Amino acid sequence: MVVVMEKNATQAQIEHVVATLIEKNFDVHRSTGISRTVIGAIGDKANFDEREFLVLDGVSEVVRITEPYKLASRTFHPENTIVQIKDVKIGGDEVVVMAGPCSIENEEQIETIAALVKKSGAKILRGGAFKPRTSPYSFQGMGEEGLRIMRAAADRNDLLIVSEIMDRAQLDMMVNYCDILQVGARNMQNFDLLKALGKVQTPILLKRGMSATIEETLMSAEYIMAGGNYNVIICERGIRTFEKYTRNTMDISAIPVIQKLSHLPIIADPSHGTGIRNKVAPMARASVAAGAHGLQIEVHHDPDHAASDGAQSLYPEQFDRLMEECRLIAKAIGKRM
Amino acid sequence: MVVVMEKNATQAQIEHVVATLIEKNFDVHRSTGISRTVIGAIGDKANFDEREFLVLDGVSEVVRITEPYKLASRTFHPENTIVQIKDVKIGGDEVVVMAGPCSIENEEQIETIAALVKKSGAKILRGGAFKPRTSPYSFQGMGEEGLRIMRAAADRNDLLIVSEIMDRAQLDMMVNYCDILQVGARNMQNFDLLKALGKVQTPILLKRGMSATIEETLMSAEYIMAGGNYNVIICERGIRTFEKYTRNTMDISAIPVIQKLSHLPIIADPSHGTGIRNKVAPMARASVAAGAHGLQIEVHHDPDHAASDGAQSLYPEQFDRLMEECRLIAKAIGKRM
Amino acid sequence: MVVVMEKNATQAQIEHVVATLIEKNFDVHRSTGISRTVIGAIGDKANFDEREFLVLDGVSEVVRITEPYKLASRTFHPENTIVQIKDVKIGGDEVVVMAGPCSIENEEQIETIAALVKKSGAKILRGGAFKPRTSPYSFQGMGEEGLRIMRAAADRNDLLIVSEIMDRAQLDMMVNYCDILQVGARNMQNFDLLKALGKVQTPILLKRGMSATIEETLMSAEYIMAGGNYNVIICERGIRTFEKYTRNTMDISAIPVIQKLSHLPIIADPSHGTGIRNKVAPMARASVAAGAHGLQIEVHHDPDHAASDGAQSLYPEQFDRLMEECRLIAKAIGKRM
Amino acid sequence: MVVVMEKNATQAQIEHVVATLIEKNFDVHRSTGISRTVIGAIGDKANFDEREFLVLDGVSEVVRITEPYKLASRTFHPENTIVQIKDVKIGGDEVVVMAGPCSIENEEQIETIAALVKKSGAKILRGGAFKPRTSPYSFQGMGEEGLRIMRAAADRNDLLIVSEIMDRAQLDMMVNYCDILQVGARNMQNFDLLKALGKVQTPILLKRGMSATIEETLMSAEYIMAGGNYNVIICERGIRTFEKYTRNTMDISAIPVIQKLSHLPIIADPSHGTGIRNKVAPMARASVAAGAHGLQIEVHHDPDHAASDGAQSLYPEQFDRLMEECRLIAKAIGKRM
Repeated sequence: MVVVMEKNATQAQIEHVVATLIEKNFDVHRSTGISRTVIGAIGDKANFDEREFLVLDGVSEVVRITEPYKLASRTFHPENTIVQIKDVKIGGDEVVVMAGPCSIENEEQIETIAALVKKSGAKILRGGAFKPRTSPYSFQGMGEEGLRIMRAAADRNDLLIVSEIMDRAQLDMMVNYCDILQVGARNMQNFDLLKALGKVQTPILLKRGMSATIEETLMSAEYIMAGGNYNVIICERGIRTFEKYTRNTMDISAIPVIQKLSHLPIIADPSHGTGIRNKVAPMARASVAAGAHGLQIEVHHDPDHAASDGAQSLYPEQFDRLMEECRLIAKAIGKRM
Repeated sequence: MVVVMEKNATQAQIEHVVATLIEKNFDVHRSTGISRTVIGAIGDKANFDEREFLVLDGVSEVVRITEPYKLASRTFHPENTIVQIKDVKIGGDEVVVMAGPCSIENEEQIETIAALVKKSGAKILRGGAFKPRTSPYSFQGMGEEGLRIMRAAADRNDLLIVSEIMDRAQLDMMVNYCDILQVGARNMQNFDLLKALGKVQTPILLKRGMSATIEETLMSAEYIMAGGNYNVIICERGIRTFEKYTRNTMDISAIPVIQKLSHLPIIADPSHGTGIRNKVAPMARASVAAGAHGLQIEVHHDPDHAASDGAQSLYPEQFDRLMEECRLIAKAIGKRM
Repeated sequence: MVVVMEKNATQAQIEHVVATLIEKNFDVHRSTGISRTVIGAIGDKANFDEREFLVLDGVSEVVRITEPYKLASRTFHPENTIVQIKDVKIGGDEVVVMAGPCSIENEEQIETIAALVKKSGAKILRGGAFKPRTSPYSFQGMGEEGLRIMRAAADRNDLLIVSEIMDRAQLDMMVNYCDILQVGARNMQNFDLLKALGKVQTPILLKRGMSATIEETLMSAEYIMAGGNYNVIICERGIRTFEKYTRNTMDISAIPVIQKLSHLPIIADPSHGTGIRNKVAPMARASVAAGAHGLQIEVHHDPDHAASDGAQSLYPEQFDRLMEECRLIAKAIGKRM
Repeated sequence: MVVVMEKNATQAQIEHVVATLIEKNFDVHRSTGISRTVIGAIGDKANFDEREFLVLDGVSEVVRITEPYKLASRTFHPENTIVQIKDVKIGGDEVVVMAGPCSIENEEQIETIAALVKKSGAKILRGGAFKPRTSPYSFQGMGEEGLRIMRAAADRNDLLIVSEIMDRAQLDMMVNYCDILQVGARNMQNFDLLKALGKVQTPILLKRGMSATIEETLMSAEYIMAGGNYNVIICERGIRTFEKYTRNTMDISAIPVIQKLSHLPIIADPSHGTGIRNKVAPMARASVAAGAHGLQIEVHHDPDHAASDGAQSLYPEQFDRLMEECRLIAKAIGKRM
């Protein structure tokens, strides 16, 4: 941390800041320039609140120089993390695709879609059994029965499963069905849930919150990792901006940024990132071109009658064509799919 | 809902939209102008997804004309809701103040602060026992023991209590200690928690999420009310914008906007809304001037040694002076405090 | 500036950074901690681009420790600037009100409104002769003839005049009519215009851009001041956020923030800040309560037939009542109006 | 436009709205449902202010159903516009690349860079002679002399030229040197400049403002087109969000959105869109993958000593490799480069 004193800070103010830093276990380096004193403070804890120093008299600015996360940081773990589930590796040179409906609706639906996405090249089946709906009056998901039929469809089609967990009370049950547990954008800072997920070894797909900074997203990954579960995959799914034509603004640049800051895999969800079918394909292609380790895409064989999010679900033939295009793009940048 | 067709939409496309609307139980009114057809659709459900119609061929735009919330809407409940707890009424002409430390730290601390804020005119004691900290390495709160000592301090000083609930598993325990349960900004869309809170009758203080629209905030209130608990108080605490000098940008205009859209009380939290002590007083005054039904303010007798958020906590004498100023401002607009 | 090296930066990388800093005329202080080297760099220029160092190999982070503005900074000019025009002082203890129509429409209109706002206590008449309309098909303003009739109305009613300048070609003409020249939000970074305004001594009312940070706003003030015109008044008029119920989100906290960073007066424009009549009064009151040095408010005697912005213009009786309330609020915080 | 009345609107309020609409030349269609009256209003002007109806008593919501732009809209001009300059066509199947330094610095620099970018496949040379710098103390550009030497370098290397115009006073001079005139993000709503550009036939590269919505961007295009110049190219260059790791958040989804709403070509500027060298290539690739008609990229043979924006300029060999990758990506989606 660097504490910059005001131009006209008094000697007493400087001494007080130094004393406070020492009291809080920082090593202190003072440099006095022509116009200002700057105090370098080096500590071993990442979890201090820099505003505590900002409010001291005579302080002009306080700047932290370490990321507040550690286990998630590339500084502490320079090699890419590869999350492996059976023979699927997320985080390496292969772009891995998760596809399926927004909600699991019934046995026929999930089987039909599983077979279609498998044929097009997906490795993981997505589908929600517990749905975080903005309205209390909307379809809330099939619950455990949904997971049971999705597991069966996945097994028949040799696919892995990812599904969203909404409350830590669902954890013991869900680990029996799912290969990857998804934390939704709205729960990215549900810290009780994150702590519980740190206690299992099932890989976690952590979606960036709608207004979460990249740093906060990595801090939420840190919560899970601090509990002992290092299998965390980050997912960019659009942030909230002033623009109204799209539901969210997909922050494609988060992909290379996170790859620099962290060793964790990062995938993209253009379905939620845009919210409307005809924008999904361009944004999926853009994500692969920017270097994403994977994609999560909503696909439905009959989107007009989907129980939720039909408007952002691709038709199977659109998904198939998109996979073809993404394969070529992956190749163009030295990856495969 | 109004469905606007494209200028060059075909007759077949228009028929398909009409048929789809009828299939989904809407009454349909078609008006054909010189250049476009506009279809009015009237239904009795609030929970449809307008994007389902937006993706139909020939459709240019879809506009919903009803708010997606009902119980929280002033249309359905024109009179102000007044949440009454013992003799404290929130939502009427009196500006009610909740004050106290960020975290409950120990018996002496909470007693000292309770006595101070009571003397300055607060009616409700705030204090966190479970803390939603961004870092897993930060102080996570005293838990139930904290609630026990806060309850005792509140009782000794004739104050009510508000404290944050983070997970529905804490509910049965917390209702025994708290007069108001607070839902934090990060949990505003933790729908499992909201549903559980709908099952009790304890008043809920619902904080607007950092990037939640006003509509989404009212939808979260609707979740609680749909379960049967109508005692909901909304709290504006700052939204996320591009500006970096303040932690958040307090959206003071949300106060009159929510008062127009909803009958629920709306209070302001300038401590989290700004994140830094010397901005708390101006924003508290601004909130009262804009018509807020109450304030929530962090106060600590020794902020430099607070376990959390010391930098945004007022000194007792600052709080006392602020109360004096707010009293005059309340009077200037025909309220009292 | 502080340059933070990466944990595993090599000696050669550190040397290269130091050499680059010296080449660019910085004094260098190096501190090597257990895990990192941190380099303090002190220079006398404010206009460097810190990214030049960020891209050097081995650099983790670069932090500037001086504001990029100087003349606008309170560090360099600790006393409040008071802009005085005749007997009106902006920046002191009196809250000064500028009021009038969005556009000057005709002689009768401007005279009627001038008399009304004067009676309610306004000191300055506002009115646009050149209008920055989003649509090329909208009313673009009366031009010089408008200024002529506004000047006459102002003189008859003993008011000063503020009006917007849109292009530096209008400058020579406008200084003959106006007491204050306004730079609109859309032109806040029209640097050619700012430079031209630095060459005159007429006070400038600089509106914050819709997405301008506070720092950028002060940098635009710096442009004007660098040319020699120190009479700059800042105006907060709402920033762009994700919230859709209001046209803009008024950043009331910018008022105390700018008062800390700069010595320049800061006023508030709740008419543009909210965009809708019934939100103007609460936000005007909030601005005064937060400590604004003045207000700019749109008032029209017949808003339903206004040539522009009728929807956000107050009726004269609303304006009169608002002035009454603001007077009491100003008094509550030790100011007058 | 659709005017939705409140649930409890009176007959008199409805009549008043209808009368007001008729007075303003709208055709009115009234539909009365069980709970509300909805009024459809069809007019032939695009430049009304819908808020004028929103403030009428009894009105709940007002929704415009036509875009406020016309000449820029795909509705009125279904075919793609192709801007052709000599043998370069922007807006068709070929992805056209504009590359060069941020600022023109001297003859040797611009000649060196021109030759390099030509060799890698660029068709157009970019370079600034008038620089919109945030600080008045920064390098402001070489002015006309810069344009002269850039023109010579471009001619020697068979390249076209694009350069930024900052003030309408520069127009007569600049058309003599430039093939494309660029309007910078900060001047996107400098309406006097836009009007002047409508009077010439030189193609205009219009950069989206940092906080401009897509609709506002197209309205600025409309300003130019309304004057008679239909050769407008839109450029996405990043918008302002809460995220701090990147200077701006590039809104890649604006590319397909604008292609749906408008017939004008849309290109991407990943140099300003990210602000830092190592993010330029991934975002350039993403833009091509999303369907951009072209790219604008800053390239410098010696970025460490560039007069401006060196940190976001590519080294020539990086640019060359990027062109190679983009060529493959363009091919993957049926385009060429």
